[in-house]
Amino acid sequence: MMEHIRTPKVENVRLIDRTVSRKATVGTLYLSATHTIFVENNPETRKETWVLHSLVASVERPPTTPSGSHLVIRTKNFQVLELLVPQERDATDIHASLARLSRPEKYSELYCLSINPTANKEEREESWSFLDLQADYRRMGVPNNLWVGTPANSEYRVCDTYPSELFVPKSATPPVIVGSSKFRSRGRFPVLTYFHQDTLASICRCSQPLSGFSARSQEDEQMMQAIMKANPGSEYIYVVDTRPKLNAMANRAAGKGYENEDHYTNIKLQFIGIENIHVMRNSQQKIIDMGEVKTPSMGDFLWGLESSGWLKHIKAVLDAGVFIAKAVAEEGVSVVVHCSDGWDRTAQACSLASVLLDPYYRTMKGLMLLIERDWVSFGHKFSHRYNHLDGDPKEVSPVIDQFVECVWQLSEQFPCAFEFNERFLIQLRRHVYSCQYGNFLGNSQKERRDMRLRERTYSLWPQLWKDRAQYVNPLYRADHTQTQGMLRPNTTPYCFKMWKGMYNRLEKSAPPRHSPADLLTAVREETQQLEQELTNHQERIAALTRRKLTNSSSAGQRMTNETCEEERPGRPAPSTGDGSVDSPPHDYRSTQRGPPDPAMTLPLGPPKGSDPDDLSSACSDIESGVIDLSSRSSSGGDDCKDPESDEAIYCPAWSGTRGPDTGRLPC
Amino acid sequence: MMEHIRTPKVENVRLIDRTVSRKATVGTLYLSATHTIFVENNPETRKETWVLHSLVASVERPPTTPSGSHLVIRTKNFQVLELLVPQERDATDIHASLARLSRPEKYSELYCLSINPTANKEEREESWSFLDLQADYRRMGVPNNLWVGTPANSEYRVCDTYPSELFVPKSATPPVIVGSSKFRSRGRFPVLTYFHQDTLASICRCSQPLSGFSARSQEDEQMMQAIMKANPGSEYIYVVDTRPKLNAMANRAAGKGYENEDHYTNIKLQFIGIENIHVMRNSQQKIIDMGEVKTPSMGDFLWGLESSGWLKHIKAVLDAGVFIAKAVAEEGVSVVVHCSDGWDRTAQACSLASVLLDPYYRTMKGLMLLIERDWVSFGHKFSHRYNHLDGDPKEVSPVIDQFVECVWQLSEQFPCAFEFNERFLIQLRRHVYSCQYGNFLGNSQKERRDMRLRERTYSLWPQLWKDRAQYVNPLYRADHTQTQGMLRPNTTPYCFKMWKGMYNRLEKSAPPRHSPADLLTAVREETQQLEQELTNHQERIAALTRRKLTNSSSAGQRMTNETCEEERPGRPAPSTGDGSVDSPPHDYRSTQRGPPDPAMTLPLGPPKGSDPDDLSSACSDIESGVIDLSSRSSSGGDDCKDPESDEAIYCPAWSGTRGPDTGRLPC
Repeated sequence: MMEHIRTPKVENVRLIDRTVSRKATVGTLYLSATHTIFVENNPETRKETWVLHSLVASVERPPTTPSGSHLVIRTKNFQVLELLVPQERDATDIHASLARLSRPEKYSELYCLSINPTANKEEREESWSFLDLQADYRRMGVPNNLWVGTPANSEYRVCDTYPSELFVPKSATPPVIVGSSKFRSRGRFPVLTYFHQDTLASICRCSQPLSGFSARSQEDEQMMQAIMKANPGSEYIYVVDTRPKLNAMANRAAGKGYENEDHYTNIKLQFIGIENIHVMRNSQQKIIDMGEVKTPSMGDFLWGLESSGWLKHIKAVLDAGVFIAKAVAEEGVSVVVHCSDGWDRTAQACSLASVLLDPYYRTMKGLMLLIERDWVSFGHKFSHRYNHLDGDPKEVSPVIDQFVECVWQLSEQFPCAFEFNERFLIQLRRHVYSCQYGNFLGNSQKERRDMRLRERTYSLWPQLWKDRAQYVNPLYRADHTQTQGMLRPNTTPYCFKMWKGMYNRLEKSAPPRHSPADLLTAVREETQQLEQELTNHQERIAALTRRKLTNSSSAGQRMTNETCEEERPGRPAPSTGDGSVDSPPHDYRSTQRGPPDPAMTLPLGPPKGSDPDDLSSACSDIESGVIDLSSRSSSGGDDCKDPESDEAIYCPAWSGTRGPDTGRLPC
Repeated sequence: MMEHIRTPKVENVRLIDRTVSRKATVGTLYLSATHTIFVENNPETRKETWVLHSLVASVERPPTTPSGSHLVIRTKNFQVLELLVPQERDATDIHASLARLSRPEKYSELYCLSINPTANKEEREESWSFLDLQADYRRMGVPNNLWVGTPANSEYRVCDTYPSELFVPKSATPPVIVGSSKFRSRGRFPVLTYFHQDTLASICRCSQPLSGFSARSQEDEQMMQAIMKANPGSEYIYVVDTRPKLNAMANRAAGKGYENEDHYTNIKLQFIGIENIHVMRNSQQKIIDMGEVKTPSMGDFLWGLESSGWLKHIKAVLDAGVFIAKAVAEEGVSVVVHCSDGWDRTAQACSLASVLLDPYYRTMKGLMLLIERDWVSFGHKFSHRYNHLDGDPKEVSPVIDQFVECVWQLSEQFPCAFEFNERFLIQLRRHVYSCQYGNFLGNSQKERRDMRLRERTYSLWPQLWKDRAQYVNPLYRADHTQTQGMLRPNTTPYCFKMWKGMYNRLEKSAPPRHSPADLLTAVREETQQLEQELTNHQERIAALTRRKLTNSSSAGQRMTNETCEEERPGRPAPSTGDGSVDSPPHDYRSTQRGPPDPAMTLPLGPPKGSDPDDLSSACSDIESGVIDLSSRSSSGGDDCKDPESDEAIYCPAWSGTRGPDTGRLPC
């Protein structure tokens, strides 16, 4: 990518604060192969702002002004960087360089394939074996005497967008599978995605049938019958077509469409009405635009929220999940879900149903597995939808954004039901776009295999897992009723809100860094310390009691508080339950995944007080007023923000100044 | 009131669940002098639903159906009770009775004056001396060498809607006071309401000047000059006219209006644009109506929220407070606030400024004092605005509702800054409407004095204080930066939300009974218990150490968990800090404020499992899934809900079944 950099360095650039103040800081702008970097001149701070090229959504050049040329960089995670470049020629060069750098044309230009990690093979392979999809199927009791693995799609012979390992009803013979596949768009025949052990009902997914106005397929009908029979407790199945009925009908003219209830015995067809990717793309653009309006009136805001239609779509997606989950858990009826190709709305609906049905998918690892199954393995077109390469803009759509937001809306309604917090979801979504890890490259398992990504890149999941301490929802209680059972969310409009943490990231007070949840974390730490002290005391008592076996039940004089204080042991490090979080720094450093950016050769010394979260650092926590919280953290690392930040724009820190965070892959 | 009861008892009435299910329970309806009571027939539960007459907003009678006559009772706190009465004649009688009972014509018919408390004089008087306004002025440093008390209004000679005790600038002579008073609507001349000790700037309040198009008053101008001079650090004052400028200009035609900046030297006039009481009344009605729509679409909801204008008005009120607070604390400039009469918008703006400026008003007692000062003492027309008597509907307006909601919106933005929770605010507002206590009767201090309310009724404040354990915000930290300093809220539209806890009370999932804050309370209790255990252990260690003075620093074998458990003391009752909450039941019973309802002579035995929160009990916490929490409460009283409930409709409990709550004034 180095050849696309027309100018590696421009001095006296101004970074303009996009809040009302519009104050500017002067510094130097660097272009590396992977990042745009702005380094403040101020020798006190030398604050750095890094923007990953692959997260750049657009670079605009408003008309040149007497003071110089403006450049407005918008990122895929809704941040905006405004620069003022003194020389027009420099601005032209930067603009042209960034236009190219942010629009990779080949996979090999993407971050995860362009850097050359020095870590060993073992570690890389280990990262890919972190999740085991087959183990998750086993966890849900599959295979069993109703559902079996089929070798039909090994080497992707039947369907090249499906995974090679699939589960089908035991009675589905190879001819039925192949026949059904021929009668479905892109060969995506009905296969199992979730099996509900309590009711034996299942969720299957597929694409639309090639039914047109009258076509039918005996094998496809047999396949549906087989699915019904694989649920001994039910006389029928639901076929959930997640599209608006009109859209489904329109597809008949192209020889596609939906199941004819006269041909399929014992199916109940249900339309849900989730709009298509084009509607969703436009809707999200409106809510992004609204998030950028500087001083909207209340009317502007509410009107904008309504007219974007975004929350209406979020509700439709969630309603689909609720319908499926209720059918499976409450009625004990199996559901076959499809949309058109079965890789967008179907992925949303199936994965949400799993989140609602199965508490495991409300844990961090569970959600990773769910995305790995319903999105990655089943051929959601990540590279097309999230514009990894410079492709067809009509293919781009925030499909997984909506899934992630539905999970967030659920977590707001059930604050104790999810192991992870909002940051986890924002980070997940970020990496879908960032291409820093190999997980989401390409559009199918076959494409990823052909690219040999497991040999050339790292998997995201173990990294998220290592960082899980910062993603923990302190309200999560594995033993709660709501955590254990099926979630039955209220989906009346009152229960949806605009996700400020996602779309309003430059807003001064949002997202709150020190929410009630953060406070709870602090209180929990306090509790753990008390428990530790108790244990120490109990040990002392035990020791004392053993030595002098006199009965001391009549407790003596109370000790003064001062004395007690002195007796307290040093504050123990906070534990997150399994002890693996607080590994010493060298554990991280030893991973040696290369320097922060191998293409970076900036002559920069380690900055003082780098703040990875630069834009929001302009509006520090003085406003939210909970600065004192950080001092409560016994790790002392709370205000060292994370280079695996949820921001596209951040300031990295340097080895040795940050403790356990150093050595991570930079964003 | 007994004479207005046309039928005291109707059997076989159905209480219809207003949620989608519309299932009904059969029971008996009773009308007492103060309550409508529905008692379920089900001998297992005998659930009771009580509705205070004074909280009834309307009683509708839809057309009679074959199954009987419907009655729809709407309460002033946004609850709805739907009854089906078998006989039309009974329905007519109930309707006519309630229409009269819920529209008292004389103060003596109001709850607090119609019941006859048997408690002694001392206790009653003590209840009225619970708050001391003068002490609060002293707390803020008044009187001092800038501001002095004036006897001008003793016996309400100058202004009959002002309190008798007032503070004015030291240099304001009696002729200036009287002259200024003559130049102001209703004689409400500028007086001190808040003095800011750090900057010496002050907030004064008054009504609009009688300026018309050209009139002026030397004394009024001198009064403003005196206010400016009472702030040595500033060369000018702000005059904040909280009205829209157009409204203020229109008033000139009636000989009123606003200050002419050419006549008053060194004032800066600022209009804020809070709409009048009629606009606010209509706006609130729209948001109430929206809260009743059964299955609104997302568009309906967002459109309804926008078109109600409610949040826009809330923002305007908060903006007024922010302007004043910033002027005082940041610029050190004194502010004179008025609207038209200076008792609605002026009360809102001044009291909000105090909340923003002074952490004390963010405590429970502080907020009580603030309401006592800026609303009660300064002549906010409670009886007119909240329709205590059957009066002019054009006088009714949710003025204090908006103040309370602004405080709630602030508490959402600063979760650690307020000592109280949402329930406290909802309860406060409820009592403004309920007339169960004498505090809010009448429209001015003089009226209340003339009614001799202190001799005939109780004050609400000590009751709220007694109940404070249930109003504590567990996130409140007196030592937080945000708790100590001035609050600087973000008032961009994103930061306002519909107050579901207030307006969406029948919504299944809202308000959450077990919010993160509740969980935090539980965790804090746990911490307290651990601390208690620690103390116990420390005492044991001290005792053991004293007996055997050998050094036992090498701790011995760990005790097993079982052993530790056995050693734990009984769970201590949760403490709220000062030990006065957990008074034994007889403390409450001994107040002997009469039986739950002296006019009630129902032959009802003590019901099993009364639920004071009947409507929401239909949608129990199974949904929110935190049932197990209640079992964590060491008081064991968590699910005994409170008869001082925030609901107009509730089921009371009976002496002996509820612990400390019994014996309270019923709602």
